[in-house]
Amino acid sequence: MTDPRHDATRRITAPTGSTLTCKNWLTEAPLRMLMNNLDPAVAERPEDLVVYGGIGRAARNWACYDKIVEVLQRLEDEETLLIQSGKPVGVFKTHADAPRVLLANSNLVPHWATWEHFNELDRKGLMMYGQMTAGSWIYIGSQGIVQGTYETFVEAGRQHYGGDLRGRWVLTAGLGGMGGAQPLAATMAGACSLNIECQQSRIDFRLRTRYLDEQATDLDDALARIKRHTGAGHAVSIGLCANAADVLPELVRRGVRPDMVTDQTSAHDPLHGYLPAGWTWDDYVERGKTEPDAVVKAAKQSMAVHVQAMLAFQQQGIPTFDYGNNIRQMAQDEGVANAFDFPGFVPAYIRPLFCQGIGPFRWAALSGDPEDIYKTDAKVKALLPDNHHLHQWLDMARERISFQGLPARICWVGLKDRVRLGQAFNEMVKNGELKAPVVIGRDHLDSGSVASPNRETESMLDGSDAVSDWPLLNALLNTAGGATWVSLHHGGGVGMGFSQHSGVVIVADGTDAAHARLGRVLRNDPGTGVMRHADAGYDIAIDCAHDNGLDLPMLSTGETK
Amino acid sequence: MTDPRHDATRRITAPTGSTLTCKNWLTEAPLRMLMNNLDPAVAERPEDLVVYGGIGRAARNWACYDKIVEVLQRLEDEETLLIQSGKPVGVFKTHADAPRVLLANSNLVPHWATWEHFNELDRKGLMMYGQMTAGSWIYIGSQGIVQGTYETFVEAGRQHYGGDLRGRWVLTAGLGGMGGAQPLAATMAGACSLNIECQQSRIDFRLRTRYLDEQATDLDDALARIKRHTGAGHAVSIGLCANAADVLPELVRRGVRPDMVTDQTSAHDPLHGYLPAGWTWDDYVERGKTEPDAVVKAAKQSMAVHVQAMLAFQQQGIPTFDYGNNIRQMAQDEGVANAFDFPGFVPAYIRPLFCQGIGPFRWAALSGDPEDIYKTDAKVKALLPDNHHLHQWLDMARERISFQGLPARICWVGLKDRVRLGQAFNEMVKNGELKAPVVIGRDHLDSGSVASPNRETESMLDGSDAVSDWPLLNALLNTAGGATWVSLHHGGGVGMGFSQHSGVVIVADGTDAAHARLGRVLRNDPGTGVMRHADAGYDIAIDCAHDNGLDLPMLSTGETK
Ligand SMILES: NC(=O)c1ccc[n+]([C@@H]2O[C@H](COP(=O)([O-])OP(=O)(O)OC[C@H]3O[C@@H](n4cnc5c(N)ncnc54)[C@H](O)[C@@H]3O)[C@@H](O)[C@H]2O)c1
Ligand SMILES: NC(=O)c1ccc[n+]([C@@H]2O[C@H](COP(=O)([O-])OP(=O)(O)OC[C@H]3O[C@@H](n4cnc5c(N)ncnc54)[C@H](O)[C@@H]3O)[C@@H](O)[C@H]2O)c1
Repeated sequence: MTDPRHDATRRITAPTGSTLTCKNWLTEAPLRMLMNNLDPAVAERPEDLVVYGGIGRAARNWACYDKIVEVLQRLEDEETLLIQSGKPVGVFKTHADAPRVLLANSNLVPHWATWEHFNELDRKGLMMYGQMTAGSWIYIGSQGIVQGTYETFVEAGRQHYGGDLRGRWVLTAGLGGMGGAQPLAATMAGACSLNIECQQSRIDFRLRTRYLDEQATDLDDALARIKRHTGAGHAVSIGLCANAADVLPELVRRGVRPDMVTDQTSAHDPLHGYLPAGWTWDDYVERGKTEPDAVVKAAKQSMAVHVQAMLAFQQQGIPTFDYGNNIRQMAQDEGVANAFDFPGFVPAYIRPLFCQGIGPFRWAALSGDPEDIYKTDAKVKALLPDNHHLHQWLDMARERISFQGLPARICWVGLKDRVRLGQAFNEMVKNGELKAPVVIGRDHLDSGSVASPNRETESMLDGSDAVSDWPLLNALLNTAGGATWVSLHHGGGVGMGFSQHSGVVIVADGTDAAHARLGRVLRNDPGTGVMRHADAGYDIAIDCAHDNGLDLPMLSTGETK
Repeated sequence: MTDPRHDATRRITAPTGSTLTCKNWLTEAPLRMLMNNLDPAVAERPEDLVVYGGIGRAARNWACYDKIVEVLQRLEDEETLLIQSGKPVGVFKTHADAPRVLLANSNLVPHWATWEHFNELDRKGLMMYGQMTAGSWIYIGSQGIVQGTYETFVEAGRQHYGGDLRGRWVLTAGLGGMGGAQPLAATMAGACSLNIECQQSRIDFRLRTRYLDEQATDLDDALARIKRHTGAGHAVSIGLCANAADVLPELVRRGVRPDMVTDQTSAHDPLHGYLPAGWTWDDYVERGKTEPDAVVKAAKQSMAVHVQAMLAFQQQGIPTFDYGNNIRQMAQDEGVANAFDFPGFVPAYIRPLFCQGIGPFRWAALSGDPEDIYKTDAKVKALLPDNHHLHQWLDMARERISFQGLPARICWVGLKDRVRLGQAFNEMVKNGELKAPVVIGRDHLDSGSVASPNRETESMLDGSDAVSDWPLLNALLNTAGGATWVSLHHGGGVGMGFSQHSGVVIVADGTDAAHARLGRVLRNDPGTGVMRHADAGYDIAIDCAHDNGLDLPMLSTGETK
């Protein structure tokens, strides 16, 4: 039996230009974005329909993919296509202001919401893992990872260093798939960085793609470079081939003081992702096959040492945070009782942004023309003249990050600005400044769209981490507001059982109808994030709600609970 | 501290008549239905905001209730109110064809979806248990329980006895809160019934309310009555005060053959709901306090005996089924290895209905005038002239069931008929036949709106019991179609962790806009149920989809998976 998910002959690229292949732009847009998700320049394993995130897929199998394309091509402007875990299951009559596609991916009744049960259904062909933007057709490559990391560094800079990271340096480890974005993000944020990575091949790759600026020969050399560059006020990233579990304690011993400490080794997977101190990577891989328990134990013991050094930095008053790799849990398992003394990155730095509805807002040019994005970049700058770090992000993104597939841009903006930007883009489509419509969306990792107690909703002020009414309301409201496609997923980011989240994409096709829809959706969507955080009692969110005239009934009377 | 949920001074009844207290009927309707859910004639503990189902509430606390009322009174016709577990959290701009209220109740990220965590959040004032129709404002009293049971008996009659239960008799036990509907439902379905109940007080209550026709003095008397009434072709219900764990084995020994066997003792709760054979109820209650383990053991041992008798009936070819009280599990725990040989009521009888989108469709007259419902009863009969058992239901419902709160009617109709009925009612509002608009909804226990592997989606043909993409799509599509309020709940019926489900209500206010919305929503909503069952491979559903012209892309080409 051939695998219905594998087809090495497929090579998908989205149509570009201003000619429709579907009946209108509201169906052309999901078609192009689905195809773009599977573009070899974008997807990790397009032949298997895998976009990113391990097994995050865009369609359940190739027959489903073909049928989705066929249905989108025939879909009328008062019809809605339903997608159930990557399968096109129904077309129903709705109306012009309703979404054209509604998706639900990987959702399981809680008691059965485990990888075991999911894998069983997945094998039977009944389900698909949608991750976040894979199954909801708004993944746009590594730009998102760079920018998320950039925003984290910038916000840390804002909180601890008055918004100026010049002359400052970040200490971190791990230059893998996602962690490799750290040096570039630090540079963009204006800081130097010392990036410890135990595999030379990873350092070479990051040097080649210009995500990393230079490599030090040893720790002394690294510290000398840091001293030189921070002194000169240059934001240069430095790689060091070494083991973080050796280097961090040594830095503590020497009394060296970085300005920020974090880590993106793959600590969440001690068998494959974290090298024990004193081992070679080859040893680690080999012994992992024959004596996995001993390897895991060794890795976790090194993590304990690593975390103890991080705690020591924190005790000196240096901003120290977990970057979602679960290293605190591992160290705690190994007896580091106070491992959770330093916070996760969301409660520490991202939550204040979420409180204002700020998150990974993004758009893509359906024309396929990079000029369209450059024009929107200029428009964003014009509309937000005082947002210095956003300007810096736009400039550096243009310079350092190449487009993958359809040209796209990510910008962390919030409730205050999303409608203005979206409607301005729509105007640019209308008056012909842009060659074709633009789609506007966001990651599910956004202010009002996710419940994920180990990550995005860790340590909420009121303890409501696990309440998932919020992302469900977000999806319902975006549907009611007239988004072009809306999705509800389970298990993204942290795996089965640990998150529920929703996605939204809306098309700016230059029509007045789109103008009205953008006005609703791009306000309501971040608005639910501000609402959710205001309800939890965050002052920033309550202020933001007031400043932006949100109508939160239990708040307006002073009662918050 | 006073309990924000308790207020003994409250006495809520919905406004009636044709005068608005809100700005339009689309907001008046949820207001009246919320209030109706809390009417003392409808709700179990209205002073605590509890509607039914243990702790199923209509609003989180009294402050939230008051605020919901206030917001509905001011809500404009292009605004939407968001309710998060019974709390009014936001009002957002949408459009005229969008729902006026969107609700999410009791939803938890799966890993935390337990009663323990829910109770903690509930105590903190962060959540509310919405059950099914309690938190989504479309509960209408015990009529629903009678009719669900009636439909089960009728469908069993259809499958086993050519649709004619005359001269047949049902053997069951339990005349409690829900089980007490069995004798009336059996009578309505045209069958005699022998109802074993161990508490005389329960029998008295059912005799008084005319849910039960007569009581036998002992088993011989009961069998004589059964013989007489079945012989005469009269559908008479007979109560017998005894223990089911004694009576069923005795009937097996005597070779007596009922025509159908089921059970609604509270077997799911061996400590409070199932009397061990040979015990008095007082003993059971008393010993439960001091030696709960021994009591549970005794109860489960009797259940094993009880189930063995049910299995013996089944082996004789007599239709035997579990009525959702978990008695099979209890017996299996006690060593009855083949306890699950007889099926649950949904896979056995309800699923064929679900395959056609048939489920607990219902409507309520906002006028408060019973005549409005009688007129709709007549309209249903006129539109469905050949649906004999529906006519029988309507006649008997009118005769035997008194309205609670706003007059309402339940009718199990499906994809084929819902639009016709809904649009006809809308026409009756338009031309003044009805005194005020009508709301149309359904229970969450419906064809396309629930994932509940221990009940509604037990033993799906393809093993997709736990896939909850379906109810989520249902809610999104009903939102897109323009229902008046839409809800997403977790844990209804079977408790935290075990179900996800959605509710929908739509107003027939006599306008052309409502006509169009009814045409979409009352087709799409049961349509998703037919779709879900067709996707699982049920022939009845596939045929129904074809007969009704549903557009199911992967089906139309012959591929079902
Ligand atoms: N929460 C978030 O949003 C978020 C974002 C990015 C990354 N992360 C987490 O960060 C981690 C890294 O992700 P990735 O995709 O880059 O993983 P990866 O496996 O591709 O890279 C990990 C890197 O760490 C290096 N490494 C392992 N042990 C080391 C040690 N002792 N010293 C120095 N280097 C060592 C490896 O050689 C590898 O290059 C993961 O746990 C991921 O979940 C979380
Ligand atoms: N799945 C469904 O849709 C559905 C519908 C209705 C009821 N149920 C189930 O049916 C059960 C009954 O519900 P209820 O609300 O009527 O409960 P209840 O507790 O009010 O009533 C149970 C009745 O059974 C009697 N009883 C207990 N042990 C007995 C024995 N050994 N012999 C004879 N009578 C005995 C009790 O005296 C009591 O009157 C529950 O388990 C409920 O979950 C399920």
